[in-house]
Amino acid sequence: MKTIKVKSPANIAFIKYWGNHDPHLVLPNSDTFSMNISHCFTTINMEIHDDPKHKILAIKKYRDADFERANAESLSRFLKYYESFRQYFGVKKDIGFDIRSENSFPLKAGIASSSSFFSGMALALNHAFNLGLSERELSIAARLGSGSATRSIPDGYVWWHQGNDSKSSFAESLAAPDYWDLIDVVAIVSYGEKSATSHAGHATASTSPLYQSRLKELKVRTKEMRAAFEKKDFTKFGTLCEEEAISLHAVMMTQRPAIYYWNGASIELMKKLQQLRQQNIEAYYTFDAGANMHIITEKKHLKAVQKYFEAQPEVEELIVNYPAIGTRLIK
Amino acid sequence: MKTIKVKSPANIAFIKYWGNHDPHLVLPNSDTFSMNISHCFTTINMEIHDDPKHKILAIKKYRDADFERANAESLSRFLKYYESFRQYFGVKKDIGFDIRSENSFPLKAGIASSSSFFSGMALALNHAFNLGLSERELSIAARLGSGSATRSIPDGYVWWHQGNDSKSSFAESLAAPDYWDLIDVVAIVSYGEKSATSHAGHATASTSPLYQSRLKELKVRTKEMRAAFEKKDFTKFGTLCEEEAISLHAVMMTQRPAIYYWNGASIELMKKLQQLRQQNIEAYYTFDAGANMHIITEKKHLKAVQKYFEAQPEVEELIVNYPAIGTRLIK
Repeated sequence: MKTIKVKSPANIAFIKYWGNHDPHLVLPNSDTFSMNISHCFTTINMEIHDDPKHKILAIKKYRDADFERANAESLSRFLKYYESFRQYFGVKKDIGFDIRSENSFPLKAGIASSSSFFSGMALALNHAFNLGLSERELSIAARLGSGSATRSIPDGYVWWHQGNDSKSSFAESLAAPDYWDLIDVVAIVSYGEKSATSHAGHATASTSPLYQSRLKELKVRTKEMRAAFEKKDFTKFGTLCEEEAISLHAVMMTQRPAIYYWNGASIELMKKLQQLRQQNIEAYYTFDAGANMHIITEKKHLKAVQKYFEAQPEVEELIVNYPAIGTRLIK
Repeated sequence: MKTIKVKSPANIAFIKYWGNHDPHLVLPNSDTFSMNISHCFTTINMEIHDDPKHKILAIKKYRDADFERANAESLSRFLKYYESFRQYFGVKKDIGFDIRSENSFPLKAGIASSSSFFSGMALALNHAFNLGLSERELSIAARLGSGSATRSIPDGYVWWHQGNDSKSSFAESLAAPDYWDLIDVVAIVSYGEKSATSHAGHATASTSPLYQSRLKELKVRTKEMRAAFEKKDFTKFGTLCEEEAISLHAVMMTQRPAIYYWNGASIELMKKLQQLRQQNIEAYYTFDAGANMHIITEKKHLKAVQKYFEAQPEVEELIVNYPAIGTRLIK
């Protein structure tokens, strides 16, 4: 019985993916840019079985002691992915499997759990079917499961090219993890599962009357962000991170149906972060599709950021993340 | 000794004024649209004195027992207004005065207290100098003190034409108070004074990278809002109100320096209002430059809205406002 073990990071996007023009191939409406994060990852253990009817997915949730069988929704989404993967790469063979997936961080809480899971599964299926896919093909394979998963395949700081078709919409590493010692401190304010999955939100993003404006702004912001990254201009970089997060959530709150990922604690922490900066501790926020604030800072400010936010009543827990490598086989 | 008594309403904008291209003449970058509100108003008692050196402004704050002399900042802003008014209308005469201004609602808390004060003062000064200004001229006079004050002069539902110079930037009534039984229930979540005055925020609005997009969207939204108002299409009208509020606050949070008027309670109430709608109680939010949520509803839903929000822990107080007439002399 063959067993494949994979470890894959979540990533935090500085320029966000929101909305696509092809929901099946998951083709986005803009380039996006992210960093793989060291302490939010998924570990997948996949046992291959001969009987194709044997298809099991079990998930161990954050801080749970045991694996539990995935619910119907999660299993169905995964099986749909499994079919898309086989179809896309022309795999005729069907296999059985027993997959155990474990997250090091809270599920569905604005830390991209689908990014680490589907990137990990792309690599696992590549080995299950002995396809020998390149990194670029793997990032495309991950994309079929979840847009943000595309970016978890390559190492460190990752650029996802929008492209104009499936082949040209892939991710590549812009810089290794040690290029810049940025840190992403996730301030967990809510362990609750979010009200809407981002999967559903992408489909209705363009119903926001702010969406077309956002796409236009993004062309400018993306260029500026890339330039700030190349110069390691943290003030400019961080300021753009915050603008991007506000633009994203403004779209979310005005699409139909409206999605409110922020909660009261999110807003209070945004304001507190602004106050912290006035004490010359440089840090900026970003938010994915969730209530938890990602605090982007440089290593030299980490201790001060930790000390300040540990003391805030809104914060349940802080997860400190360094830039990380992409998806890998492990032993 | 001549005494002038004035009562002037605050107004709630459905399409917001944010940013201007002439801070002295207060010329806005778009048309705006509002409703005067019945239970948030300023009462001004102005005694005229012969000695021009006698210049007193006293303010009775919400729920205070007594009048107190205005602080230096408020007095200086008012005296600057007094000078602008005289200059604009060619008034050579200087007068002394003892002004007592009393608000029926919390100051500087996202209910436009400057709107009711400066509109009231425009009418008071008109009578103090016996100028016989028309309603249009009064709305221009109010504008010199505060943009939103322009809209408190005419009755009911009020349109402020952007114009291209001072003469063409005035407000007029689009409909009388009884045209549509909209209600503005203000959910007070914070009595605290806000961190930045909107006066200062207007000056830096255009530093937001979202600002130009906002102005473009506004052309569309303003037309749609006017059409919804004419058809009394409340669902469309309310949806546009919410979009407008999000667009406004997205700009505020991304201008430099960033302004966060929302607090945690604001966000929680936005989410709760969305939940209330799922129970077929139709109501929509808007926010001015403050944390307090304005709940726009129709009379038939008022009781349900009150009952629901009175029970929420974030709400300190509800103020129920009906559409109101504009600035008037009183006895």
